[in-house]
Amino acid sequence: MKTTEPYLLTPGPLTTARATKEAMLRDWGSRDTAFIDLNGRVRQRLLAISGTIDSHVCVPLQGSGTFIVEATLGTLVPRHGKALVVVNGAYGHRMARMLEIMGRAHTLLETAEEIPSDPAAVAAALDRDSAITHVLVVHCETTSGILNPVEAIADVVAAQRRHLIIDAMSAFGAIPFDGAAVPFDALMASSNKCLEGVPGMGFAIIRRDAILASAGNAHSLSLDLHDQWTSMEKNGQWRFTPPTHVISAFDHALDRFEKEGGVAGRHARYAENCGILIDGMAEMGFVPLLPSHLQAPIIVTFRMPGDSGFDFQAFYDALQGRGYVIYPGKLTVADSFRIGCIGNLDAKVMRNALAAIRETLDEMGVGEGTPAAA
Amino acid sequence: MKTTEPYLLTPGPLTTARATKEAMLRDWGSRDTAFIDLNGRVRQRLLAISGTIDSHVCVPLQGSGTFIVEATLGTLVPRHGKALVVVNGAYGHRMARMLEIMGRAHTLLETAEEIPSDPAAVAAALDRDSAITHVLVVHCETTSGILNPVEAIADVVAAQRRHLIIDAMSAFGAIPFDGAAVPFDALMASSNKCLEGVPGMGFAIIRRDAILASAGNAHSLSLDLHDQWTSMEKNGQWRFTPPTHVISAFDHALDRFEKEGGVAGRHARYAENCGILIDGMAEMGFVPLLPSHLQAPIIVTFRMPGDSGFDFQAFYDALQGRGYVIYPGKLTVADSFRIGCIGNLDAKVMRNALAAIRETLDEMGVGEGTPAAA
Repeated sequence: MKTTEPYLLTPGPLTTARATKEAMLRDWGSRDTAFIDLNGRVRQRLLAISGTIDSHVCVPLQGSGTFIVEATLGTLVPRHGKALVVVNGAYGHRMARMLEIMGRAHTLLETAEEIPSDPAAVAAALDRDSAITHVLVVHCETTSGILNPVEAIADVVAAQRRHLIIDAMSAFGAIPFDGAAVPFDALMASSNKCLEGVPGMGFAIIRRDAILASAGNAHSLSLDLHDQWTSMEKNGQWRFTPPTHVISAFDHALDRFEKEGGVAGRHARYAENCGILIDGMAEMGFVPLLPSHLQAPIIVTFRMPGDSGFDFQAFYDALQGRGYVIYPGKLTVADSFRIGCIGNLDAKVMRNALAAIRETLDEMGVGEGTPAAA
Repeated sequence: MKTTEPYLLTPGPLTTARATKEAMLRDWGSRDTAFIDLNGRVRQRLLAISGTIDSHVCVPLQGSGTFIVEATLGTLVPRHGKALVVVNGAYGHRMARMLEIMGRAHTLLETAEEIPSDPAAVAAALDRDSAITHVLVVHCETTSGILNPVEAIADVVAAQRRHLIIDAMSAFGAIPFDGAAVPFDALMASSNKCLEGVPGMGFAIIRRDAILASAGNAHSLSLDLHDQWTSMEKNGQWRFTPPTHVISAFDHALDRFEKEGGVAGRHARYAENCGILIDGMAEMGFVPLLPSHLQAPIIVTFRMPGDSGFDFQAFYDALQGRGYVIYPGKLTVADSFRIGCIGNLDAKVMRNALAAIRETLDEMGVGEGTPAAA
């Protein structure tokens, strides 16, 4: 086994730059001017990335991506509102489960995991049910790696004067999205996806009038984004102890993001990583779940090989031994595994990972990665 | 202004050891064996510190201390239960506010901020109200720095067959507490207090039969400790992306904790820090809020000086310029400020901080720190 740090070809936690981690080598007082400035700078840059500086605010929150998603739903969907949850994977289902636990009315609009969410079906669902106040969609569903048409859904939702909330966890910063042109109330993402910080905080970009109207909605003190925002606007400080080191690393990660050319630069690198991965895997007979026009350059789902010599756990372990961590599948429709293309990875890493996969197949006596039913 | 990193004489975030921060210089895959092992090791060591290896379980959670406190209340106080919240400061009030937002029945038993919680009053309250199922107390209230008699309260609660939940945030690891002898259902603390990790995760030590009985209680998916624990017991993994770097730093911080001699060693250093601080401040005329038998060696509240030349913001800024960050007061009963003695600080740091305070007073033309009304 290699004892050096492996590359993480996963949907997160990701491989981050050494210098990003080095930004954690100091302690910050949470009430200090320098930290308050750092925090303000991070929030402002996130707003700028979303293209909503004039219309929206940025509210950060301690915890994982799930925490900021739940906090946003709890804060923005009123206690007597109703949500339409547009689902084609585990993260859509997770939002529905949150609403269930909170006791907020909701209904599902589900397509299969390899089928994108359908704007026309959203329009029809809104026509049928005037009680629906909010529509929840997932931009890139990492269950499959599919890209959902959030812009078209946003138009439909706006036309019917409902509110749109976008789980942009795996997309934000790498998938072009023009917040000035797309009508939406909120989107949520985290420090540890395409912006390549370390895990430990999430953030929501929320339309100013939506957050202003949300006082008293939240089901939780810790997850109350109205309270978090109101308090932070007063003195620039977090209500409760912030993950100072994580935020410092995030600030550095945003420097790198800007140097790379922002969303365009990040998207270009990930798209190159993704292309190399899919082409190289295809040469070995592996078949991706999705056609290329539905595939986000974030994480790729491959169907499980049919060769009887192939054993996923052994494959996973051998790749890790060679320095590459891949990811199990999460599909309910087919046996699969996933390989991510995000994080501090480039073409060379992807090519080396492919070489490690080829070596591993050879070692297992597996000629081709062709799925049984392909 | 000094540009090097200041010492944080606060209740957190704290000054941590360089080597603890260096443990964040690698990325971990959250499903990897090495990370799963690390996580299991951290949980087991926290149980051992609490003296409850056979009776309790350790459930970690992403976020700040407030998140784990809210998660524990939401998970353990049943929807039709009722909590007696024993209050003598902001953190007791915060628990009451959480219950209010969750819609769980509760009643307050409050003493002034400089008066310890009273076991006899708890007994009387339980006598009066048989609907009370849970009693919530704060071990060390950092509002004032007071140490509450949790052992005596635990006896009273157990005698009446109610359940005790202890907010041990600022006490755990530094204030002796024998979990094998003290009857309690849960205590909560965080990575960033007396165990000297970096901020970003909390944990609860929960009696096994209490967590087993708690399914379906929680008001939140993210804050559901029953779900978090059940899932973690299955595969050693966190349900949602863990703050991997923070946990790695925490593991290292626990190494240091053990090397220092565990609770006894940590308590001895903090007690020395606290003694040096109080004595040195007394020499300059400052008066602590609390008599020494009520003072926990965690953070000390001093009454605001009466000298008309003293300005707290200028004092704070000048001390920060000299490399020492202190903390504003949180008392409602008196104008005050606070100085912490926890974190990676020793006698030398405390003496240097006192010298910086003396210099700052001289610079301000303030002879004595004597309070106006003392």
